Amino acid sequence: MPLQFADRLNNVETSAIRELFKLLGKPGIISFAGGFPDSAMFDVDGIREASNAALAQDPGAALQYGATEGFGPLREQLAHFMAQKGAKDVAADQLIVTTGSQQALDLIGKTMISPGDKVIVEGPTFLATIQCFRLYGAELISAPVDGHGVKTDELEKLIAEHKPKFVYLIPTFGNPSGALLSAERRQQVLEMAVKHQTLIVEDDPYGDLYFGEAPPPSLLAMSASVPGSRELLVHCGSLSKVLSPGLRVGWMIAPAELLARATMCKQFSDAHTSTFAQATAAQYLKAGRMPATLDKVRSVYAQRAQTMGDALRRELGDAVDFVQPQGGLFVWARLTGAGGKVADGNAFAKRAIDNGVAFVPGTPFFCANPDHATFRLSFATVGEDKILDGVARLAKAL
Amino acid sequence: MPLQFADRLNNVETSAIRELFKLLGKPGIISFAGGFPDSAMFDVDGIREASNAALAQDPGAALQYGATEGFGPLREQLAHFMAQKGAKDVAADQLIVTTGSQQALDLIGKTMISPGDKVIVEGPTFLATIQCFRLYGAELISAPVDGHGVKTDELEKLIAEHKPKFVYLIPTFGNPSGALLSAERRQQVLEMAVKHQTLIVEDDPYGDLYFGEAPPPSLLAMSASVPGSRELLVHCGSLSKVLSPGLRVGWMIAPAELLARATMCKQFSDAHTSTFAQATAAQYLKAGRMPATLDKVRSVYAQRAQTMGDALRRELGDAVDFVQPQGGLFVWARLTGAGGKVADGNAFAKRAIDNGVAFVPGTPFFCANPDHATFRLSFATVGEDKILDGVARLAKAL
Repeated sequence: MPLQFADRLNNVETSAIRELFKLLGKPGIISFAGGFPDSAMFDVDGIREASNAALAQDPGAALQYGATEGFGPLREQLAHFMAQKGAKDVAADQLIVTTGSQQALDLIGKTMISPGDKVIVEGPTFLATIQCFRLYGAELISAPVDGHGVKTDELEKLIAEHKPKFVYLIPTFGNPSGALLSAERRQQVLEMAVKHQTLIVEDDPYGDLYFGEAPPPSLLAMSASVPGSRELLVHCGSLSKVLSPGLRVGWMIAPAELLARATMCKQFSDAHTSTFAQATAAQYLKAGRMPATLDKVRSVYAQRAQTMGDALRRELGDAVDFVQPQGGLFVWARLTGAGGKVADGNAFAKRAIDNGVAFVPGTPFFCANPDHATFRLSFATVGEDKILDGVARLAKAL
Repeated sequence: MPLQFADRLNNVETSAIRELFKLLGKPGIISFAGGFPDSAMFDVDGIREASNAALAQDPGAALQYGATEGFGPLREQLAHFMAQKGAKDVAADQLIVTTGSQQALDLIGKTMISPGDKVIVEGPTFLATIQCFRLYGAELISAPVDGHGVKTDELEKLIAEHKPKFVYLIPTFGNPSGALLSAERRQQVLEMAVKHQTLIVEDDPYGDLYFGEAPPPSLLAMSASVPGSRELLVHCGSLSKVLSPGLRVGWMIAPAELLARATMCKQFSDAHTSTFAQATAAQYLKAGRMPATLDKVRSVYAQRAQTMGDALRRELGDAVDFVQPQGGLFVWARLTGAGGKVADGNAFAKRAIDNGVAFVPGTPFFCANPDHATFRLSFATVGEDKILDGVARLAKAL
């Protein structure tokens, strides 16, 4: 008798991207496909010192079971980190530590979504969000974006029509769109949350990775000036893109009632996030190394983003359209079909692999109505010479 | 408008134990209430060396995103660890690493349980298992245990009657029962799995903590001699009780089809377990320090168990009934009411707190038909002098 699995598994499919990633092992491939930071940026010395300090100062606490809400000293440090980023009124007990921000998404799903509930996400949005929420039975609605993030007028119409359980946004340098939601639209999002009494989830793993000026304040920071909005806002943060994904340290700030229930769900999900990793992260933040680390990653990624943008404009010309990213890890581009060139992202991805360069076509990032002309390039993990070489191969593939 | 949470939250309640734990902060309380290992047993030097070795040898791998299935070198080491424990045919790719074995339970729930599905557990069983499976909508059926573990004749009747999605057992020094399932009953469990084509989940976090002779082989090890049983068996392991809970390193061995789906669910739960913690655990196991660590914890816990058992017999006499544990962390006892003494575990727990000693009453560990006379004592985290003092207080409370 074959095993009979839970019905919820019928809501998700194995990712098309997984199939693509199998091809990345081909020798000589230049990959713009990744969605991760460059390992060469990791502050290994700082992390070693932090973990040794954690084991020296209180080994029992660093290696024992811990509170589901998170390791006290880390919660303090994260509250301070958020304050430096403009969210000045977050107390340590208003956030819980999660096993990466992926777990925050999972806990939001577990806590909020009953099968059949509607959730609005950006089109395009983070692939693992789509699958995560669908596993809990969500019906996803796609809100269109442009170069300045989600189109707030369309979003408000969708909220009024669908009355969703919540709206999930990556307002700052989103994956895959790379877009930066304007200050004006941020204000509008908070106002419509209050007007329609709709919960907003702000996922913010990339906000620290800006290249020039700092981006507008997060929805969380801005909520202080929109009465009633804070009680309708969940904010997810992460050390993965700025310090190390391998620590799996994220956090979640939410209204008290929601946070308490998410904590209960976390208790039965993994009891708590690794105290060893949490104590290490706490020591790292306490040591004051984060500002220098951020300066370094910002300047390296800024240079790579510039190199890639310049090369794309030079080599692919009007066959592609994109907004030069002001932060994050991604260029989100659209094939225009100009000059009779290929206009389908999937077809382009296959040709690119044949030419020795990989990226992710845009279709899987849409929960509905995919724009087949789109594709995502990551500049984060590739040195500038290889960026030039890779873009030349893209031009050939076109 | 108040937030509306997911329906699944209606299936669980805040734990009665949590309320009890709030009382543990009272000064001078001796606590037999914990369910964790003694921090003083942690091999801090070994873990420091292991984490430094991980950062020295391949810092990129230890700090970067990793495969959802787990960090390759750790999977190899865990397969080797299982082979030393008698499960000789487990390949590294037949196990996935989980964020503690709590996550293995969560993934089993997510992968297998549709709302309304029946699951058989021992009465009593691990509290977080009950809540975890109920969150996925399981209807739990309680199978009675005695001093030798689950009563297999009764279990078989329940399987035949309820046709459960799976049966969850902690066959070796279970929490809270401390019971050791006999070799004969293990054989019967595997045979009934095949006969009824029922999936069995073996949770085994305590099997390494034996005090004298090694216990009978795990169901996993024994499955080699019961044709067809391996394809109906999930095994969950953990480093939490023997090395460090704070690493949050557990693992799950399961039929390929189930393991693939659990891996997909894990991808959307936390992407992967901390690679930093995994690389540390891999280096620790590779360094060959585990046998000495196991020898140490076994002998310390054995002595404490003996001291507690002797004291209970001496001080409480025929007012309590229990089987002297042969391993694990717990004494599971029953109030007999002899001599007109208190016979209710909850009432006894309250009196005990007033007398300066804490433990967990047995009722919450039953998913149905609780035995109100039961209670759980942990001897693991308390030195022998305090055990004697604490048991004297228990006698006074009686």
